[in-house]
Amino acid sequence: MDASASARPLGNADELINAVGTFIFDCDGVIWKGDKLIDGVPETLDMLRAKGKGLVFVTNNSTKSRNQYGKKFEELGLHVTEEEIFSSSFAVAAYLKSIDFPKDKKVYVIGEEGILKELELAGFQYLGGPGDSEKKIELRPGYMMEHDENVGAVVVGFDRHFNYYKVQYGTLCIRENPECLFIATNCDAVTHLTDAQEWAGGGSMVGALVGSTQREPLVVGKPSTFMMDYLSNKFNIEKSKICMVGDRLDTDILFGQKGGCKTLLVLSGVTSLSMLQDPKNAIQPDFYANKISDLLSL
Amino acid sequence: MDASASARPLGNADELINAVGTFIFDCDGVIWKGDKLIDGVPETLDMLRAKGKGLVFVTNNSTKSRNQYGKKFEELGLHVTEEEIFSSSFAVAAYLKSIDFPKDKKVYVIGEEGILKELELAGFQYLGGPGDSEKKIELRPGYMMEHDENVGAVVVGFDRHFNYYKVQYGTLCIRENPECLFIATNCDAVTHLTDAQEWAGGGSMVGALVGSTQREPLVVGKPSTFMMDYLSNKFNIEKSKICMVGDRLDTDILFGQKGGCKTLLVLSGVTSLSMLQDPKNAIQPDFYANKISDLLSL
Repeated sequence: MDASASARPLGNADELINAVGTFIFDCDGVIWKGDKLIDGVPETLDMLRAKGKGLVFVTNNSTKSRNQYGKKFEELGLHVTEEEIFSSSFAVAAYLKSIDFPKDKKVYVIGEEGILKELELAGFQYLGGPGDSEKKIELRPGYMMEHDENVGAVVVGFDRHFNYYKVQYGTLCIRENPECLFIATNCDAVTHLTDAQEWAGGGSMVGALVGSTQREPLVVGKPSTFMMDYLSNKFNIEKSKICMVGDRLDTDILFGQKGGCKTLLVLSGVTSLSMLQDPKNAIQPDFYANKISDLLSL
Repeated sequence: MDASASARPLGNADELINAVGTFIFDCDGVIWKGDKLIDGVPETLDMLRAKGKGLVFVTNNSTKSRNQYGKKFEELGLHVTEEEIFSSSFAVAAYLKSIDFPKDKKVYVIGEEGILKELELAGFQYLGGPGDSEKKIELRPGYMMEHDENVGAVVVGFDRHFNYYKVQYGTLCIRENPECLFIATNCDAVTHLTDAQEWAGGGSMVGALVGSTQREPLVVGKPSTFMMDYLSNKFNIEKSKICMVGDRLDTDILFGQKGGCKTLLVLSGVTSLSMLQDPKNAIQPDFYANKISDLLSL
C-alpha cells in the first residue's frame, strides 16, 4: 500500500486478518501500558491464534531479557513462548552473532540486566551494566580513567542508573579502541516506566554518547530493519503477509513500512488521532484503530 | 581573510599583533590544561598588556562562575579581572537578561555550581543543579514525577553528577511547560577535567536531552555568536580588530570566524597539526602556532 496515502480507520477487520499470516505486535502501548494490560488483549490474541495466525511480540525495551519478558506476559495472564518474543536486548546479541563478533572481545554495556542476560546466553563477554551504577570519577590532578582495550563494542540501551562514569567509559572505548562498534538498542524519545506518565527513553542515553563521541550508532531495535530481516529469515515469513501493529509512528510504523509489511497503528499508546492526522506527520500506517481488540469486532 | 584558505603558521607575530586591538582567549588548552598553566603564558599576557592590547578570556566550561574562574587565574599566578572573564555560565545569565526572561519564572538547571551562581547574581529564580544529584526515581505502578509548571527555561551544561532524575525532570519541563526554553551552555564533545585525558563534555548532557525531547537547544557558548555579539557591544570592539585564540576548530575557530574576527589556532590543546591539515577538515584558522608564547618570538 502507498505509504503517502492517509491511514484508513480499521472498519471491517476481516479484510486485514485474511490478508495477513503473522502479526507482529509492539508491547508497550499495544499489549500493556506500564504494568496494566490493555482492554481486550487476551481475547484478541486467542481469536488470532484460533485462526492460525502467527504472533510475534517485539519491543524496543532492552531492560529485560526474552525470558524475563515471558514472565511479564505470564503475570498478565498471557501465554507467550520465549521464541515469540523479540526484545531489543535479544536483538543486540543476535546482531553480534550475525556479524561473528569475536568471542575474545568484550562488550561494554550502558543499560540494564536484560542486555547482560542475552549477551551471556549468546556466549559473549561483557562488562559495565548495573555494576557501574554507583561508580564515580575521581578528580585529582593527573587522574585518568583506565579502560579495557579489548572492548570491541559499546552497547547503549535505556538505563535508569545512567551516570557520568558510564558515559566516559563508553566514550573512551568508542574513541580509543580501534574499530570499536557503537550499538544502540533503540533511540526512542519516550518509554513507559509507569503508566502514569511518559519517561525519557533510550534516546537520551544514546544521545549522550552521540554528543561525546560525535558518532552515530548502529541501531538494532525498531525502526532499523535488522530485527525485521531477522524475523523474516528465521521464521521464513513473506514480508507482505506480515502486519506490524504498534503505537508509535516513528518506530513501529516506520519499522513495518521499511520491512515491506502492512501496518496498523493503535491509539492506545503514545500517538493520538490528532497527532496522526497532523499535516506535519509524514508517516501514515495502512490502518488505525483505538486498540487491538478492535480486531474482534468482525 | 578567506576562511577557505589553508592556515598559515604564525611566522612573524608582529603582523598579527599590530593588526589586532583585542585578543580573546579560550582557556582550556590555551591558557591551562587541567590544572597546569601552559608554558610561557604569563610572559605572553604581560607583553600584550604592555602593548595596550585588550584581553578577554572566554570558556565554554560552565562549572564555575566568573568569580570562581578569577580564583583559578589567581591560583595560577595570573592577574585577570572578573570583567575580563566570559564563561558560558555567565553567558546563560546574560542571555536570559537580554531576552527579559521573566523574574517570576524559574530556570531548571542540569549542571554545576557556576550556572547557579551566575543566575543568582542576575536575580533569576532557579532549581535543580547539584541539589538533584542524589535524587532517584520511584518505580511503583502509577508513579509520576511532579514538575514545577513555572519553569520557563531548562539550562543544560556539563554535569559530572548527571543522572536520570535530572534528564526526566528537564524533559518534562521542556515537553509540558508551554514555551519553555531549552538552553545549552555548549555542545562540546570533550572537556579537560584533568590534564591526563579527554573527558566527555557538555555535549553528552545536551545530547541526552535532545534524545528525549527531540528538540534542538539554543546554545549560548561557543561557537554560537551570542557571546561574540555581547562582547562586541559591551566593549565597543570592532570585530575585525579582534583575534580569537583557541585550541578547537569546531568551537573556538568557528566562533571567531562567525563573528568576523581574525583567528589563531594553538596546538597546545585538543587539535593536532595533522587534524588541522587533514583534507576532511573544512575549518581553517588564519594562523596557527604551537602555543600562545609563540607570540613572544618577535
